[in-house]
Amino acid sequence: MRASAAVALLALLAAGCASVRGTGDLGLVVERADGAVQVVDTTRMARLARIEGLGDLSHASAVFSRDERYAYVFGRDGGLTKVDLLRGRIVRRIRQAGNSIGGAISQDGRVIAVSNYEPGGVRLFDAVTLEPLAEIPAVGADGRRSKVVGLVDAPGRRFVFSLFEAGEIWIADVHDPRRPQVQRIREVGRQPYDALVTPDGRWYIAGLFGEDGLALVDLWHPERGARRILPHYGRGERRLPVYKMPHLEGWAIAGRLAFLPAVGRHELLVVETEGWREVARIPVHGQPVFAMARPDGRQVWVNFAHPDNDTVQVIDTESLRVVRTLRPGPAVLHMEFTPRGEQVWISVRDGGEVQVYDTERLEPVARLEARYPSGIFFTARAHRIGL
Amino acid sequence: MRASAAVALLALLAAGCASVRGTGDLGLVVERADGAVQVVDTTRMARLARIEGLGDLSHASAVFSRDERYAYVFGRDGGLTKVDLLRGRIVRRIRQAGNSIGGAISQDGRVIAVSNYEPGGVRLFDAVTLEPLAEIPAVGADGRRSKVVGLVDAPGRRFVFSLFEAGEIWIADVHDPRRPQVQRIREVGRQPYDALVTPDGRWYIAGLFGEDGLALVDLWHPERGARRILPHYGRGERRLPVYKMPHLEGWAIAGRLAFLPAVGRHELLVVETEGWREVARIPVHGQPVFAMARPDGRQVWVNFAHPDNDTVQVIDTESLRVVRTLRPGPAVLHMEFTPRGEQVWISVRDGGEVQVYDTERLEPVARLEARYPSGIFFTARAHRIGL
Repeated sequence: MRASAAVALLALLAAGCASVRGTGDLGLVVERADGAVQVVDTTRMARLARIEGLGDLSHASAVFSRDERYAYVFGRDGGLTKVDLLRGRIVRRIRQAGNSIGGAISQDGRVIAVSNYEPGGVRLFDAVTLEPLAEIPAVGADGRRSKVVGLVDAPGRRFVFSLFEAGEIWIADVHDPRRPQVQRIREVGRQPYDALVTPDGRWYIAGLFGEDGLALVDLWHPERGARRILPHYGRGERRLPVYKMPHLEGWAIAGRLAFLPAVGRHELLVVETEGWREVARIPVHGQPVFAMARPDGRQVWVNFAHPDNDTVQVIDTESLRVVRTLRPGPAVLHMEFTPRGEQVWISVRDGGEVQVYDTERLEPVARLEARYPSGIFFTARAHRIGL
Repeated sequence: MRASAAVALLALLAAGCASVRGTGDLGLVVERADGAVQVVDTTRMARLARIEGLGDLSHASAVFSRDERYAYVFGRDGGLTKVDLLRGRIVRRIRQAGNSIGGAISQDGRVIAVSNYEPGGVRLFDAVTLEPLAEIPAVGADGRRSKVVGLVDAPGRRFVFSLFEAGEIWIADVHDPRRPQVQRIREVGRQPYDALVTPDGRWYIAGLFGEDGLALVDLWHPERGARRILPHYGRGERRLPVYKMPHLEGWAIAGRLAFLPAVGRHELLVVETEGWREVARIPVHGQPVFAMARPDGRQVWVNFAHPDNDTVQVIDTESLRVVRTLRPGPAVLHMEFTPRGEQVWISVRDGGEVQVYDTERLEPVARLEARYPSGIFFTARAHRIGL
């Protein structure tokens, strides 16, 4: 071996070695306009890498491999991209459908599911190779293909999702991911448009676009079907123009209470999760979009729709009052807590930065430049159910 | 550079590079008799490394750095050892006291706290260097130094612990870890011997050795002091000889119910966590030691004291019945679930192995050789409060 070749090889290996580090404090920040993601470190509150070439990242979301090394990014253009956080590069990228809306990773980490609008259905992929495993066409009782929304993972190696046009909730068992077994719950309500599952993976709740109320399924007893809760929740509440239907993933569940963005109103609804009944309403600054609970459940942080989207409010979950109004800047799009809750990261799209707040002092402690940042996702999600 | 030197250097670098991997699926298995730990991988269900030289590991426990790369192992001999899981080696080891009983890591990951019997108190160390930061001597209202037990971390960069002889619960704020601020709750009950904090970090519960009942502190309102709950819980229940006081960390909290090992009886107590009242008792195979909830709260797994310690029972938390009795082998000491609950790892000390069970089929799917294994700790603990 010639010395120059050896030196080049050494440099190459040294570059590889630079990424010997833990992955529990990593995360992704989506830079939507550029089809790029940043890899960030929540300990040093710093950017580690920037990766381009992920396609259309409008409403993009991400899940993580169980070792917290890889992110799977779901783009609006049907792109599914596997990113290596340690090497700061794309491992593989496929265009799996024309138009997708989100994805999930199975409990055992082996299967990636992507939900699609067009053609409506769910596709399953091998988490290691991204090879296709199966497709579940979303043909409801109406005989037509529905858009699929509200896809989440659930315990028992299952995925749960909703059919928009057909008004159904399906549960796919992926023990054999090449032959998923599907259980169908019919007539759950008109036009489910989004959904969430509680942190323990038991309760699946779909919002309805076509009527008021929400559809609740007990995943311990799917044979009991869906029941309607919060019958007045929805567009029927509208007194104000609805700028944006709130995300259901944006529900905060803190202890025995859930905090829901009201639709079209400047309020947060407080619901007790035993009987799923409304117990209070909290007046807030604008139409809430996301209400996120700090991991210890003591605070809920809320951001708002246009034209109030420069503001974030912090609610105390004991007094049910706003304890602080913050103005991070123009177009606050998303918030993500560190897993033990000492920090929250906030994307300020039109401010061109991500701000890190100390959740106790309620003050910014760091700012990271980012080009039109939107979603923020930390690797700790790998260890949680239903994300 | 000569070719042979280059090759040697390449080999060295390649060895370093071998540990470029995620750390979210790693864990430690304590091999008590040898003062050793195994580093394990829960995805491949395999051993990655074995590390010796950790001293007396009776009742050893471990916490993890927020990046999930390093473990801090607390030994009975006062040893505090920082282990690099990626390199499979000890980074630093100190003997911080004569006799210790456990430790914790602060919410921000910067401070390690160790509780000591002799001399009684808590010592704080820098998580990076293990340099000592401060000592909190446990001198109670009785003017004497107490043994410290039940040390946990809590939100707000706090540590909470109990003073055995003095019967007090102390809360140390470590915002400035060189000058911890201590809040003392006096007269909580006689001889607190162990404690737990609920998964949200709000409720600190200490078991009492000197009388019946448990001391409960609301960490959202420490100024309210401690109150007594479950007045009949404790040694007063004894109808059978008590082979081992059950661990309080062994309480399972699943949804709104807590499952407690009864003291000295072949029963699990079921308590609702709103009013902390007993609602049921479940007859089990022996005197329970640990009752651990599967992360989705659907099952509780229980192991037992001698002479029934070859057995594990699985409780369904809905029917409150034993649904399976397993016999992993002689001396089942500990159980640890993977963070999304698809597996549980069980140490079978006198069988010389760790068994991995599929928690759905309730059958073993892997076995790993280990010399007298005791505690099992997965890196996902880094992301949780109170562990």
